[in-house]
Amino acid sequence: MLKLMLIPVAEFERVRAAPTEKYEKLTLLSDMCRANTLASVKLAGSGHLGSSFSSLDIVTLLYYREMNTAQLGVSHPDRDIYFSSKGHDAPGQYAVLFSLGILPKEKFLKLRRFDGTYGHPDVGTPGMEANTGSLGMGISKAKGMAFAKALRRQGGRIFVMTGDGELQEGQIYEALQTAAHQKITNLNMIIDHNKVQSDKPVTEIVDLGDLEARCRTFGWHVARCDGHDFRQLERVFAEFKAIADKPKILIADTVKGRGVSFMEHPTALKAGGGIYRWHSGAPDDRAYSDGYEEIVTRINNRLMRAGMPPLRLEEVFREEKGTSSAEREYVADAFGQALVEIAAEREDLIVLDADLSADCRLRAFELKYPERFIENGIAEQDMVSMAGGLALQGFLPVVNTFASFLAARANEQIYNNGCEQTKIIYVCHYAGLIPAGPGSSHQSIRDISLFGALPNCVILEPCNTQETRMAMRYCVNEAKGNCMLRLVIGPSPRAIALPPDYSFTLGQGVPLTEGADAVLFAYGPVMLHEALLAADLLRKERFGLKVVNMPWLNRFDHRWLEEVLGPCRAIFVLEDHSPVGGLGDAMLNALTGSGLLAVRRFKKFGVEGYLACGTPQEALQHHALDGPALARRVRLECD
Amino acid sequence: MLKLMLIPVAEFERVRAAPTEKYEKLTLLSDMCRANTLASVKLAGSGHLGSSFSSLDIVTLLYYREMNTAQLGVSHPDRDIYFSSKGHDAPGQYAVLFSLGILPKEKFLKLRRFDGTYGHPDVGTPGMEANTGSLGMGISKAKGMAFAKALRRQGGRIFVMTGDGELQEGQIYEALQTAAHQKITNLNMIIDHNKVQSDKPVTEIVDLGDLEARCRTFGWHVARCDGHDFRQLERVFAEFKAIADKPKILIADTVKGRGVSFMEHPTALKAGGGIYRWHSGAPDDRAYSDGYEEIVTRINNRLMRAGMPPLRLEEVFREEKGTSSAEREYVADAFGQALVEIAAEREDLIVLDADLSADCRLRAFELKYPERFIENGIAEQDMVSMAGGLALQGFLPVVNTFASFLAARANEQIYNNGCEQTKIIYVCHYAGLIPAGPGSSHQSIRDISLFGALPNCVILEPCNTQETRMAMRYCVNEAKGNCMLRLVIGPSPRAIALPPDYSFTLGQGVPLTEGADAVLFAYGPVMLHEALLAADLLRKERFGLKVVNMPWLNRFDHRWLEEVLGPCRAIFVLEDHSPVGGLGDAMLNALTGSGLLAVRRFKKFGVEGYLACGTPQEALQHHALDGPALARRVRLECD
Repeated sequence: MLKLMLIPVAEFERVRAAPTEKYEKLTLLSDMCRANTLASVKLAGSGHLGSSFSSLDIVTLLYYREMNTAQLGVSHPDRDIYFSSKGHDAPGQYAVLFSLGILPKEKFLKLRRFDGTYGHPDVGTPGMEANTGSLGMGISKAKGMAFAKALRRQGGRIFVMTGDGELQEGQIYEALQTAAHQKITNLNMIIDHNKVQSDKPVTEIVDLGDLEARCRTFGWHVARCDGHDFRQLERVFAEFKAIADKPKILIADTVKGRGVSFMEHPTALKAGGGIYRWHSGAPDDRAYSDGYEEIVTRINNRLMRAGMPPLRLEEVFREEKGTSSAEREYVADAFGQALVEIAAEREDLIVLDADLSADCRLRAFELKYPERFIENGIAEQDMVSMAGGLALQGFLPVVNTFASFLAARANEQIYNNGCEQTKIIYVCHYAGLIPAGPGSSHQSIRDISLFGALPNCVILEPCNTQETRMAMRYCVNEAKGNCMLRLVIGPSPRAIALPPDYSFTLGQGVPLTEGADAVLFAYGPVMLHEALLAADLLRKERFGLKVVNMPWLNRFDHRWLEEVLGPCRAIFVLEDHSPVGGLGDAMLNALTGSGLLAVRRFKKFGVEGYLACGTPQEALQHHALDGPALARRVRLECD
Repeated sequence: MLKLMLIPVAEFERVRAAPTEKYEKLTLLSDMCRANTLASVKLAGSGHLGSSFSSLDIVTLLYYREMNTAQLGVSHPDRDIYFSSKGHDAPGQYAVLFSLGILPKEKFLKLRRFDGTYGHPDVGTPGMEANTGSLGMGISKAKGMAFAKALRRQGGRIFVMTGDGELQEGQIYEALQTAAHQKITNLNMIIDHNKVQSDKPVTEIVDLGDLEARCRTFGWHVARCDGHDFRQLERVFAEFKAIADKPKILIADTVKGRGVSFMEHPTALKAGGGIYRWHSGAPDDRAYSDGYEEIVTRINNRLMRAGMPPLRLEEVFREEKGTSSAEREYVADAFGQALVEIAAEREDLIVLDADLSADCRLRAFELKYPERFIENGIAEQDMVSMAGGLALQGFLPVVNTFASFLAARANEQIYNNGCEQTKIIYVCHYAGLIPAGPGSSHQSIRDISLFGALPNCVILEPCNTQETRMAMRYCVNEAKGNCMLRLVIGPSPRAIALPPDYSFTLGQGVPLTEGADAVLFAYGPVMLHEALLAADLLRKERFGLKVVNMPWLNRFDHRWLEEVLGPCRAIFVLEDHSPVGGLGDAMLNALTGSGLLAVRRFKKFGVEGYLACGTPQEALQHHALDGPALARRVRLECD
């Protein structure tokens, strides 16, 4: 197994104490943080390197030179506050916080792990000032902090970093407008203008036009400089200090993937044929080694030139990981294929995306039907209302983005479209608890509840690729009103097997195991896998658990329900969702209304409380939703 | 009773057919529509005159000269499409559609009535192209329509009107940005720049700065002219026709309340001491008569000068209305008073508003504690995230706007704040079905479901002023986590009487009537009034209905619940909300979990399907939620 190395805090202290020239020292410190960032992402198996690297020089300068935070401590009322609104660059910030002794090593080395650090910023992590990761909220939050400081006459400046793709999000402009009007002057916004969004250039997704002029029209003071040049950055921050009557924006021109030659965006875009591949995910062993060596060699050369000994690296302990199964199934793959197939038959089908074409498996459609593909950038509200306009004109829009961003951010727009009684298919990707590494901004456990009270909207979640195709056919060809299709984004823990004669019928699920002691309804590949594990465990204890795949989350065929319940006197619902507003609530109503509940016991197992971050297994265990926990809980209820 | 008069369609035909000069004719037609708008709003008892009048000259020009819609018909695929994104100005547009014979007289005269027209645009009304009224969605919808036309190679241009205060809404900028990038060139946006928001100048609420420059930085072609000068308007639209490579914006400088001297904003603001009073609501008889006479006199003078006979007016039939009870109770009044009282004790309390200070009863606080009052303009997402920043810094923010806009539009921001585990009080004004005149954009029947799956958020709705004060005290002083306080905006149909020894205790409601045949849980003044009516009716039939006021919508004290149910074998929940995700679902879970449901019958009565527009009584009856309907439904279930 590849050895991973860490630059320990002592090495940062050595460099800080050295009589090296200021900017040379910052360059060293930033590169040292870069190496640690790379190691932590490799260790986690996932993370956002591209924008951690583009913003890292700025973050290093802020913490090491510009801000009083490290001196005063991260809870001092007069401290300077920095946080990143885009949030992707958290690994880079963690590396800086670790280097300063603010973030303990044991946490730093547990990126995206339970009890470690979150994939996106969370205030539960030492030194992190706000929860971010869902884009566009940071300036507004920073405004609140600055307002609070002013009201309490506390010291300290506010710095908030945004991405450039993030500027497609409307809330940014709400905040720009109100900040200037409300005279929030103690506010420094830094745009990490690294020119690349999730995998394509900003100019291709939704161009920002004349950014400087635009920001000025919102009443802010605007500066622009090279975001990797410490001298220029320092000059701008000094300039900002002197401006007392306006909020301030720095447009920092940066390079995505800065510091590792093949990850730097001009090179990387060329290598990828226009697609940038280092936005998220971890590099393979080869890319990791090459990148790490490149950074460490550069650092050591600088140290040597300064007459200092080379870096003393510390080996990082890595758990041996199980080999991943050869071919993993993704329900989203089937969705993407179904789109392309159906589009050939349905000329009215039109696909909308919010800069997640690859993640939502839209690229095949995008390439085959470019005229019916709308790339809307990171502007979910606009995307949903645009779909509304298309539907009014007789098209069938299929709207795609992550469940959290679609169901929560564009909720009022979805309702507004609903009131027009057109038909739209909303595809909520990345639904549910897993993957739990990115943190609560990305996990979605409220989406069913957010669609639930819309009149005339069928909510569906398929369990495997076959059912995904069936569900899409249903949505396009059979459903009369709006549909919400919920899809797990990660690999299915197993390919759920459906009976050979399975047909996809409104309100009817299908039993996957037999058992007369209790029925457990579940949906989607993640939870059905755990349910089946629980059934296996219970079978050994001679407890028969009938696991039922229920892809219809708010529609029930009462006859089928009666039949499937049979003589079972205990009914369980396993939610890949909060216990409030999911399948369980809809089913409880159906059971009560039809008299099927009667004397039966009913219990929901859902994602309770705030979300755990970690590996799938860590998160499932934390929420007591893994197979063994479910088996225990079922037994406990039935004893 | 005051006589109301209508200018009939025949009079419009007469003027159209006359050999009058083009612009003179437009002036006449526009003023005639103005008179009819005023009459329809007076008849409805409510409506937005200020912005109907400011935009009316533009709308008249569009329908009478610029667009092919009246000629081709409102469902022709090649027609020009106009709609208003702000939606307030619907009464003005209805008057134009009526004058052209598109909207039948019987509908036109039923503004805000069942089977008439909606307070805000709805596609159910002939000639209305989109549902709007929740601000900021229109450009996005128009983009969808324009994209559809281009894809199908259909003729017709798209015109969409926005307000100026509406430009505070972030979605506007998402749409501006994507429209230019997506080359949506067949799109004409008109900003009705009437300088006044709900009751204050835009420059005071959130200033727009250099609007022309700003719009240009988003890649649009921008023109500006006097929005009441037909010559200038015509010139701009001709200019727009010639520009094929960009979407186009007209900033039309207009006067809010144009055409009635004392409603015109420079005069009206002066008269109101800085407050504009003609944004919504109907004028009293005196103001109506003065205004109507002013318009009609002006029209007749013009007709006379053109050698034409004066207007032939038609009297409008008006139903005799019951005299309104002397002193109506408003729960929101108590909320506003409680805020001011509590603020004296709690220096950390801070109030945020989104341009609804008067409606949300915040003005007393605003005047008394200006330093702790944040006017955020129509930017709900920004407001909520700003509250998040304030809470992170130790303040207790109280966030206010209408329930629909807060719960649905800023939903993801609310969740994001929740994940920081701070405490914020969200006040959802205008919750529930009533008033039903403004239409589905303003009525809120999903807000409980939208807050339901947030961990650690108590949801409350008080039934009278006394309980509102108690609820606010609870939220501020006792609640550990977030609170959502739901408030009815209109007058309470009656002041609900609570027992003298009533104490506000977590999870406990209070019976308002005794009865052993069934229990009906309800909340808020509107539905409790209907519930009490039902109980009265049933009492006459010797059916004992125990009506329980249940202000806790997602918290239950099981012991109390057991006691209050007593021997009753039928449980009903009356929702001022969708049947999905409201009190009923939470209670059904509580009853099932505690074993209290057992063999009891359980039934929810909620607002099903799409919302009815109309008077309170019309809407309640349509949804079978009025007292008599409830009495029938209870009996039906119990027989």
